[in-house]
Amino acid sequence: MMPQLPDIETPALVVDLDILERNLRRVAEYAGQHGLRLRPHTKTHKSILLAKRQLELGAAGLTVAKVSEAEVMLGARPADMLVAFPIVGRGKLARLMEVARHTRVTVALDSLAAARELSAAARDAQVEVGVLAEFDAGLGRVGVAPGEPLLQLARSIRELPHLNFQGLTFYPGHIKDLGETGRRALAQLSEQVGSIRADFEHTGIEVSIVSGGSTPTLFHSHEIAGLTEIRPGTYLFNDVNTVRSGGCAMEDCAATILATVVSVARPGHMILDGGSKTFSSDRPVNSAEVTFGHLVEAPAARFHKMNEEHGFVDLTGVEREFGVGDRVHVIPNHICVAVNLHERVYGVRGDRVEQIWNVDARGKLQ
Amino acid sequence: MMPQLPDIETPALVVDLDILERNLRRVAEYAGQHGLRLRPHTKTHKSILLAKRQLELGAAGLTVAKVSEAEVMLGARPADMLVAFPIVGRGKLARLMEVARHTRVTVALDSLAAARELSAAARDAQVEVGVLAEFDAGLGRVGVAPGEPLLQLARSIRELPHLNFQGLTFYPGHIKDLGETGRRALAQLSEQVGSIRADFEHTGIEVSIVSGGSTPTLFHSHEIAGLTEIRPGTYLFNDVNTVRSGGCAMEDCAATILATVVSVARPGHMILDGGSKTFSSDRPVNSAEVTFGHLVEAPAARFHKMNEEHGFVDLTGVEREFGVGDRVHVIPNHICVAVNLHERVYGVRGDRVEQIWNVDARGKLQ
Repeated sequence: MMPQLPDIETPALVVDLDILERNLRRVAEYAGQHGLRLRPHTKTHKSILLAKRQLELGAAGLTVAKVSEAEVMLGARPADMLVAFPIVGRGKLARLMEVARHTRVTVALDSLAAARELSAAARDAQVEVGVLAEFDAGLGRVGVAPGEPLLQLARSIRELPHLNFQGLTFYPGHIKDLGETGRRALAQLSEQVGSIRADFEHTGIEVSIVSGGSTPTLFHSHEIAGLTEIRPGTYLFNDVNTVRSGGCAMEDCAATILATVVSVARPGHMILDGGSKTFSSDRPVNSAEVTFGHLVEAPAARFHKMNEEHGFVDLTGVEREFGVGDRVHVIPNHICVAVNLHERVYGVRGDRVEQIWNVDARGKLQ
Repeated sequence: MMPQLPDIETPALVVDLDILERNLRRVAEYAGQHGLRLRPHTKTHKSILLAKRQLELGAAGLTVAKVSEAEVMLGARPADMLVAFPIVGRGKLARLMEVARHTRVTVALDSLAAARELSAAARDAQVEVGVLAEFDAGLGRVGVAPGEPLLQLARSIRELPHLNFQGLTFYPGHIKDLGETGRRALAQLSEQVGSIRADFEHTGIEVSIVSGGSTPTLFHSHEIAGLTEIRPGTYLFNDVNTVRSGGCAMEDCAATILATVVSVARPGHMILDGGSKTFSSDRPVNSAEVTFGHLVEAPAARFHKMNEEHGFVDLTGVEREFGVGDRVHVIPNHICVAVNLHERVYGVRGDRVEQIWNVDARGKLQ
């Protein structure tokens, strides 16, 4: 028998199933409308159950960051898996080739070294692997510079046996919101992608896939000329960062962490039963503010400090009185890292727990 | 057969067994010399194997933060378990009483509400539970104010059935290092503890245990007048924070995260295969600096930014050249939150992996 929300122990990761479903449908419909292939990044939820739902709603495949995530996500039986991370090292590549025996695998990479290793592993395993060449759209993370270095990388990939060059990928993580600066950056990005596609056309290298976008740019992906695929992660849950980036409203946040007040000994403050091991210590992006989440029951409260298991909340300006044993829902800054700290998720409608699922790929780092 | 270090996949949590053993012995001996009871906090390692070693070396019991950690740590068969966190909620208390059937349990708390709930649970389960009254030594986290509120809390605990008032506990987390300010704070703390003990003596309330201390103050615990017990956690591994607080040298850090360079596409920078899901996003304490760990192979490198699975390292001023596939050992800022992100730990001597153990209580939040 399923428990009621008041019966579950805290801290607990709680997902509002109606909001979740609305978020899932919204992006599936957006992608459909604009003819964008949707390959959602499973790093956010790390759950087979939710990956299956994404596929049911029309996702063409799944995205993962790690081979171990790919192994887990085979459980959702995707037709296709994109590993959006350069996979380096023989052991990992051998495991990835095993995944490639069960589903079509594509790897994003940005170096000849990684491409060569992948080619050798694919040859040993007698499989073919798709490759996307990654370029740096401005974040300065992974990705070669657009222009000659990118063309050169693509040419090298095409020459390597057992690799199938499919196109390009990028992550515009430098666009933090769609204010004036962000809109300008988005327009520049669209120009850049267009110019890269023209370069490739000119050189006669076929580009079937251009995969990119980020949470803040999600619903503007169709404005990026030549983009064929999006791989959003956060959209099904959302979080404080998404709200602040303009990507959604607070009411679109499906996931909260239910926490209990364990101390009110210090006047004007309260301590919650969760800290950096529950919420992660991610601060809000693109801000100097030091806060760790939004309290649904006390929006004016400042969750300003954490230890591992203690959350410090300043109640200045909050009218409601809190006592030991009271519970609050906290929307974390960054849901992807918070989910990874929890063993299971409670899917609720109101106070009714309707589903409990595991974070299957939690802690899958290799 | 045990693998060699170069064969294990990254990111991986690696512990130098010689340094570990030295750290364990150092604190066991320190506690012995000064007649301090040692009840190490298992939140740092979360491993039954290491808890057993702590007990073998003379620890009187174990400390945990959560009931779920207590349940796991029963596996180490401690004579005694301190739950250094106010446990609130019927379900959790019932589980804790089950633990109390197997070993002596003491709970730290700071409210009459928590004490009453605990008393009721102990009565229902027909067990007796020890209680430490927590006071705030200056951190402003949990703990009542010393003086009348603390005496009043102790009196209430003594009146509640099935509770055995054993003494006091505090956490001087406001002392960040033992520079001039820190030393002054430590002297004040000693005075405070002395004066509290005098108050209790005056009132005729027996105090058997005074439990306290923190990583920076660890080897100065004997300077706190009237302290009877320490419950350090970090000391067996140490981390960047411990080094910076003056608590140890870099060579005393037993735990590192082995990571692989996956991209050098951006000149002067490299990307590691681990970010906030591998190291945690804890910044150094007591500093405005934004860095996420110390690279053993390149001490001048600045690990200045993270995404979930990417570590951004600025190589300005670093002579060594790094290429895709190279590996580095990173000492994290805060080892307790980093360990909690890993499924297993590789115990090594040089390149030889001698033991692999699980992080048994990883993600035990409730």
